[in-house]
Amino acid sequence: MNMILLFDEDYMAANEVCLRGRRLRHVLSVHRATVGHQLRVGHLGGLQGHGTITCLDDNQLKMMVQLEEPSPPPCRIELVLALPRPKVLRRTLITATTLGIKKISLINSWRVEKSFWQTPMLQPDKIQQCLIEGLEQCRDTQLPQVQTYRLFKPFVEDVLPQQLQGRCGVIAHPHVEGSEPVPCGADYVLAIGPEGGFIPYEVDLLCQQGLIPLVLSPRILKVETAVCYAVSHLTSSIL
Amino acid sequence: MNMILLFDEDYMAANEVCLRGRRLRHVLSVHRATVGHQLRVGHLGGLQGHGTITCLDDNQLKMMVQLEEPSPPPCRIELVLALPRPKVLRRTLITATTLGIKKISLINSWRVEKSFWQTPMLQPDKIQQCLIEGLEQCRDTQLPQVQTYRLFKPFVEDVLPQQLQGRCGVIAHPHVEGSEPVPCGADYVLAIGPEGGFIPYEVDLLCQQGLIPLVLSPRILKVETAVCYAVSHLTSSIL
Repeated sequence: MNMILLFDEDYMAANEVCLRGRRLRHVLSVHRATVGHQLRVGHLGGLQGHGTITCLDDNQLKMMVQLEEPSPPPCRIELVLALPRPKVLRRTLITATTLGIKKISLINSWRVEKSFWQTPMLQPDKIQQCLIEGLEQCRDTQLPQVQTYRLFKPFVEDVLPQQLQGRCGVIAHPHVEGSEPVPCGADYVLAIGPEGGFIPYEVDLLCQQGLIPLVLSPRILKVETAVCYAVSHLTSSIL
Repeated sequence: MNMILLFDEDYMAANEVCLRGRRLRHVLSVHRATVGHQLRVGHLGGLQGHGTITCLDDNQLKMMVQLEEPSPPPCRIELVLALPRPKVLRRTLITATTLGIKKISLINSWRVEKSFWQTPMLQPDKIQQCLIEGLEQCRDTQLPQVQTYRLFKPFVEDVLPQQLQGRCGVIAHPHVEGSEPVPCGADYVLAIGPEGGFIPYEVDLLCQQGLIPLVLSPRILKVETAVCYAVSHLTSSIL
């Protein structure tokens, strides 16, 4: 936790917050802070800055906060991700958030096991926990949007075209031969398949919408690694 | 496991192997393979190809193997990593291996907790397990070398200069202002600090050896993410 995220309900007055629970425990056990210490804080959806501890015991943490800095600019990549298994989903949501991604579409695909759609990890509060953890790691206050699409074809044919307006679509895919060059410096929609990859029919459908297959590496990467690797690769081309 | 890694002791004859334990269980429970099926296999340190199952029951898996393909080329980046906490170490070793890194130096740093050096994760067999898991993920047969250096200064002054011969050294560091451009297309030594980063004294010492600080992102990334992000960034510059 490189920044403590504050919510509206933490505020007792315009510049004063009171925290309990997870964040209090973290400050006690990891920061080992005391009254007078300054901590990095940010208001969800707003500015960030510092909080000065005015009261700290086993039950509560009070701070006077001063928030003046904006969050880092968002990543110019939107992610379309075949739903991974729950454990991988959790880590990938956190990682994508730390990379500054602000839109994540979780989609179905032939190789996504049906049971993955039943996981409690997809409940809004569980997803939110991952996003918060990511924001606290990377010092950001802007929550990503996460949406789920349980039907592949309707997503690709009805939702994706709108998402692609003004953006370059890319599929990170290990098995494509002769990948075209991806335009530099664009905003991107990045599609990452499931373990084992999208099936050829799915790749064809994505390519019909204008997505370009991109071979990132001669190696087969884990989903979480592939997301990070592809985002870094495309971001290098933006810079 | 996208490839089953074979060891010398698995061989019963020149082209015949017999497996038990972890790999047998994986073939039974995940591949759900039967006699006659072909599986992707590779010989540790050697070639890769296919194995055809000749016998499969709850006790053993026998295959006739045909190995003709080389592994993908190694990554042209060597990693110098401040020892992370054990859980992160495990995941980072796996990730670095899947990225094709062949040399990993685990070093001390001011912000590395002393207790991290006591973890059983540093035992050679535990490290080997991570490397094997990474190779099986990315279909590679060439084991990385992992070495540990428990004293920062002697490593930087006595070991690093040799490692830097013919290579460009880079520190992935979130807090450096005005980072110089990193030369493209080089072989690299990439240094990644602990949670919280290298302290200024350590950065100075690394810079004295010629390392260039590289600000990867305005965000603070987790160690495992930073490794992947930096490797992808430098690899994009190699391509």
